[in-house]
Amino acid sequence: MQAAQYIGNKQFSIIETSPIPPKDDEVRINVGFVGICGTDMHIYHGVMDARVNPPHTIGHEISGTVAEVGKNVSGFSVGERVVVRPLDYCGDCPACHAGHSHVCHNLKFMGIDTPGAFQNSWTVKARTLHKLPANVDLQQGALIEPLAVACHDISRARVTAGEHVVVLGGGPIGQLVALVAKSLGAHVLISEPNENRRQFAAQYGIDTINPITDDIAEFVKQWSDQKGADAVFEVSGVQPAVDAMVQVAAVRGRICMVAIHSQKPQVDLFQFFWKELELLGARVYEHADFEMAVDLVASGKVDLKPFITSISKLSDIGDAFASMDNNPIGMKALVSCEQQ
Amino acid sequence: MQAAQYIGNKQFSIIETSPIPPKDDEVRINVGFVGICGTDMHIYHGVMDARVNPPHTIGHEISGTVAEVGKNVSGFSVGERVVVRPLDYCGDCPACHAGHSHVCHNLKFMGIDTPGAFQNSWTVKARTLHKLPANVDLQQGALIEPLAVACHDISRARVTAGEHVVVLGGGPIGQLVALVAKSLGAHVLISEPNENRRQFAAQYGIDTINPITDDIAEFVKQWSDQKGADAVFEVSGVQPAVDAMVQVAAVRGRICMVAIHSQKPQVDLFQFFWKELELLGARVYEHADFEMAVDLVASGKVDLKPFITSISKLSDIGDAFASMDNNPIGMKALVSCEQQ
Ligand SMILES: [Zn+2]
Ligand SMILES: [Zn+2]
Ligand SMILES: [Zn+2]
Ligand SMILES: [Zn+2]
Repeated sequence: MQAAQYIGNKQFSIIETSPIPPKDDEVRINVGFVGICGTDMHIYHGVMDARVNPPHTIGHEISGTVAEVGKNVSGFSVGERVVVRPLDYCGDCPACHAGHSHVCHNLKFMGIDTPGAFQNSWTVKARTLHKLPANVDLQQGALIEPLAVACHDISRARVTAGEHVVVLGGGPIGQLVALVAKSLGAHVLISEPNENRRQFAAQYGIDTINPITDDIAEFVKQWSDQKGADAVFEVSGVQPAVDAMVQVAAVRGRICMVAIHSQKPQVDLFQFFWKELELLGARVYEHADFEMAVDLVASGKVDLKPFITSISKLSDIGDAFASMDNNPIGMKALVSCEQQ
Repeated sequence: MQAAQYIGNKQFSIIETSPIPPKDDEVRINVGFVGICGTDMHIYHGVMDARVNPPHTIGHEISGTVAEVGKNVSGFSVGERVVVRPLDYCGDCPACHAGHSHVCHNLKFMGIDTPGAFQNSWTVKARTLHKLPANVDLQQGALIEPLAVACHDISRARVTAGEHVVVLGGGPIGQLVALVAKSLGAHVLISEPNENRRQFAAQYGIDTINPITDDIAEFVKQWSDQKGADAVFEVSGVQPAVDAMVQVAAVRGRICMVAIHSQKPQVDLFQFFWKELELLGARVYEHADFEMAVDLVASGKVDLKPFITSISKLSDIGDAFASMDNNPIGMKALVSCEQQ
């Protein structure tokens, strides 16, 4: 079998290696498709070398087929199609004890802190698996992980039918957040400067605005009949969006912090007081978010196919990363990892 | 009867005037005691002249006795002792329709946007009244309004028994927030640079820390057995507290924004993402917060008497304000407004 290893400085090497037999609580998966996500691009650019310690096999947006089952594993059998919730938690810290293992103090993110899925075969704990129904193919399956991120964001912000929802940033996660909100019956607006991304949203019937040329605060006021947005998702990571999120939110509006702000932006805390706003941080996903994501695709409420920008072979993984690097508005590049 | 009028530039004048007969839905109150709050001090300093438009009678932390009852008012009779929830809402904006009339888009704060309580007689809508039980005297009654602020903050942050609660800032509201949290069975720590204020908290058995000389993040980690604070109250309005609130909060910790930040401080939004923190703005109070405040005093769970720093006559209101101005660590100055 083959595995792709990130070896630093935008380089991968393909190595020959052997499948890892599953331990008692593990399952070995024949990998189907693996998506390239923003975090993988960060790793590719070398900014996370201290954390990933190359050479290292990355990749965490995966679908596949059960190939071997450890002897204490129940509920999964060889041949079943699955996706992986790539979180390895300790089970024994204050966060785990409080039922929030997805934000475990000692969380290992599989595919970053431990070996990942860009290989023919991946061996993982059975507790990380979710089954794919018959009508969800492995290509869409590789997009369940980012869709679960969006489901988690929506759940944190408690979006309900009929509400006005503004999404600041129309990258893959922003688009998925918008689609999940729409599937729940919300009115959804994406604010995004890039025209291609606005068109991508429009094909799903989602309202859009260009925050560079239009006054988003004024627009949302009209759009929501003076109320403002019940829920706002900050998915862009820039200061103007941090300003906008506070301006567009209704009294008692919920703002979900999805973006990773490496700087400390200035925040209009007065408006948090004045309008009794809520800011809710959201990180990765929980078990229920993966189940919701699978259900949304299986029921046809969310169509993931338009998100698939390209499909590359594992041996071409370097080109796949390079082409995402040159196409920042591409939605999702998949790598086919099925053994040839 | 007499009324004190703020006439600008730290000046009051006492005028002779007549009681205002109550309209059908109103009640006229013989005023008992009125507290001087931070907002009143801001007005005194002239920074809110554009809003209060002097000459203007201010004052909103009031206790008194029902003197006259409008003809459509039920549930209140002459001689009953009451406090006033000083909010005049429109009843017909998106916030009022959503049940959040305390943050009405058109809210008038009584005693700022409309005439206030620094006078012998005050006529208000009956819907603003709460009754005082027999064992709560009129002096403590004048402190129900700030205690209701604290109850609202605690309710927004969903504090429960056994939780670790950190209050950043030991002024009157910070102390009251700490006392309400303690009355619910929480472990409470006040962070406050001023030694007198730390001693004030300590007399109630509340833990304290000096954030200038001690490392609050490290302290809270030990104090909470590595978990961090379940709830944090930012009651200081300064950048170092905005830094500390994020550092001391546990995974999924709730941070309640009580302070009024007129600048836009820098906020570590990365930690909101990483620890899935919540920021909850809290402004004034709702009906239930006043009822809770009255219950806490009537049941003896919160003793307000130590908060009363001084009691002045209405004719000496200027001196009362001046002495608060020179005594920033004083907790609460009351003005006795009973007709002589
Ligand atoms: Zn990812
Ligand atoms: Zn853990
Ligand atoms: Zn006040
Ligand atoms: Zn209103």
